[in-house]
Amino acid sequence: MPMQDHLSRTFAALADPTRRAMLARLSQGEANVSDIARPFLKDMSLPAVTKHLKVLENAGLVSKGRNAQYRPCRLNGEPLRDAVDWMERYRVAWEEQLDRLGAYLQAKTTGGSHGRKK
Amino acid sequence: MPMQDHLSRTFAALADPTRRAMLARLSQGEANVSDIARPFLKDMSLPAVTKHLKVLENAGLVSKGRNAQYRPCRLNGEPLRDAVDWMERYRVAWEEQLDRLGAYLQAKTTGGSHGRKK
Repeated sequence: MPMQDHLSRTFAALADPTRRAMLARLSQGEANVSDIARPFLKDMSLPAVTKHLKVLENAGLVSKGRNAQYRPCRLNGEPLRDAVDWMERYRVAWEEQLDRLGAYLQAKTTGGSHGRKK
Repeated sequence: MPMQDHLSRTFAALADPTRRAMLARLSQGEANVSDIARPFLKDMSLPAVTKHLKVLENAGLVSKGRNAQYRPCRLNGEPLRDAVDWMERYRVAWEEQLDRLGAYLQAKTTGGSHGRKK
């Protein structure tokens, strides 16, 4: 895949149930790679699991701590915030369109052709 | 790609700047395919544009109206709502973690080792 913009990388990282499950796990607190991997190892290989984790890291959704003993993974919510901001803008616009449509239909029904009562 | 769950399909559809620009256009009101396509035709072919539109339709983010004369496309915000709900959950969890960390550091600084003033 060619160079991706920031938002595309975030959304692409979220477009997979395994990666979303990893983020759900990390939302409860930091964890090391083997803890994160464990629930998935019955369905996939460790390299496959670490590849998913790498996608999350590359998207900035997961960062690795700098603890001397081990390097725990943690959730980094900033890319989520940007993505939510983007989505909210269009969700709101869509809801306003629905409201306007509702108002239009309302006006048409009550003001217009003296239509049938329901 | 194998069968995708609903959320994965939404996020995958959003993971492309052309498709996000199409949604931005549709957030201002419904439009027909040629209106949507026009700004992109200097960079890509019409089949490439309609393929992007098809991805948005398959994800349920765009629906086609049933007007007799033409079938305008419109934004459908419901998949966005589900995706925002999913993201908000983990963003909130992440911010709570940051708050706890802040409180911990605060307690450590003020109550602990009578550390250096900055």
